[in-house]
Amino acid sequence: MAYISVPEGVPGIRSLAQFRPETGKPLYELAQVLLRGPSPLTPAERELIAAHVSALNDCTFCMSSHAAASRELFGEQREIVDCVITNRPHEQLSDKMRALLHIAGKVQQSGKSVSSDDIEEAREYGAEDRDIHDTVLIAATFSMFNRYVDGLATLTPIDPKEYEPMGKRLATIGYVSPQNPNQ
Amino acid sequence: MAYISVPEGVPGIRSLAQFRPETGKPLYELAQVLLRGPSPLTPAERELIAAHVSALNDCTFCMSSHAAASRELFGEQREIVDCVITNRPHEQLSDKMRALLHIAGKVQQSGKSVSSDDIEEAREYGAEDRDIHDTVLIAATFSMFNRYVDGLATLTPIDPKEYEPMGKRLATIGYVSPQNPNQ
Repeated sequence: MAYISVPEGVPGIRSLAQFRPETGKPLYELAQVLLRGPSPLTPAERELIAAHVSALNDCTFCMSSHAAASRELFGEQREIVDCVITNRPHEQLSDKMRALLHIAGKVQQSGKSVSSDDIEEAREYGAEDRDIHDTVLIAATFSMFNRYVDGLATLTPIDPKEYEPMGKRLATIGYVSPQNPNQ
Repeated sequence: MAYISVPEGVPGIRSLAQFRPETGKPLYELAQVLLRGPSPLTPAERELIAAHVSALNDCTFCMSSHAAASRELFGEQREIVDCVITNRPHEQLSDKMRALLHIAGKVQQSGKSVSSDDIEEAREYGAEDRDIHDTVLIAATFSMFNRYVDGLATLTPIDPKEYEPMGKRLATIGYVSPQNPNQ
């Protein structure tokens, strides 16, 4: 039971965007541009960073939904996602992505924990300014979404199967604020 | 020196909004609606929550700029701000605000650390759904901004005097993305 009167039966962030559409609008716009807009990182990689940070923050709703989206987008390489969120190695994870996920993990702890060595390592593996920027902002943004969703105790489906259609929707339609009558 | 090539001499979040205006736009819109839009909490109180969370996250740029904005908005009661960010009691801080600042501090730790007892205490002092929602979202949002600004090592002015004009600008003009030619 959520701490405030959100619409019944609506999970996670969607219930909060319905509770306050004025803040839901820029939050969904941020997610759409950051996870689907132009970036040197693929949408699958960006969803992976979101799922990784949400797993570190123990946020079941965000971890499950963004892992599902990342699996959809990775397609045949979907095993990468489960390796990352359970902290196991995967040979198809590039050195650049490994270094960026390390930076995301630092951001999850605190902004100041990111060191110039962390940045240098990512650059050695080919990361450029935009890779680093997008990684830090995705990790910071999910440090927000995780706290928003769990800090108000919103509905979190337990059955992993419930997240599969969410993953498909996020992989195809993207982030459309639920106030939008088209969704 | 920032970790990525942001415009020189531009501090904190403004340098990042100039580096990537596409994400700067929804971030500034979120700050404007959340800190200046309709709410049972005054803009001074909302800036106080932002400064409190930024102090807990040891983010000098966000703490100093939002404390400066809160002082401007509190006017004659401006001492409240320095008491809150240095963890000293102040008799003019209401019990409701004290309970909401406690919730914000929980959110700064993690979403799941907010308990139903924390919410119940705030309600006993008169907090309603919107007070609680806005408090949690402000605390979550600054858990993002703090990580974004410090995770990329953006320029942080050291002299407290440099934040006074920022505070005045935020108290009067509010949050206008620097890509906007009107600012």
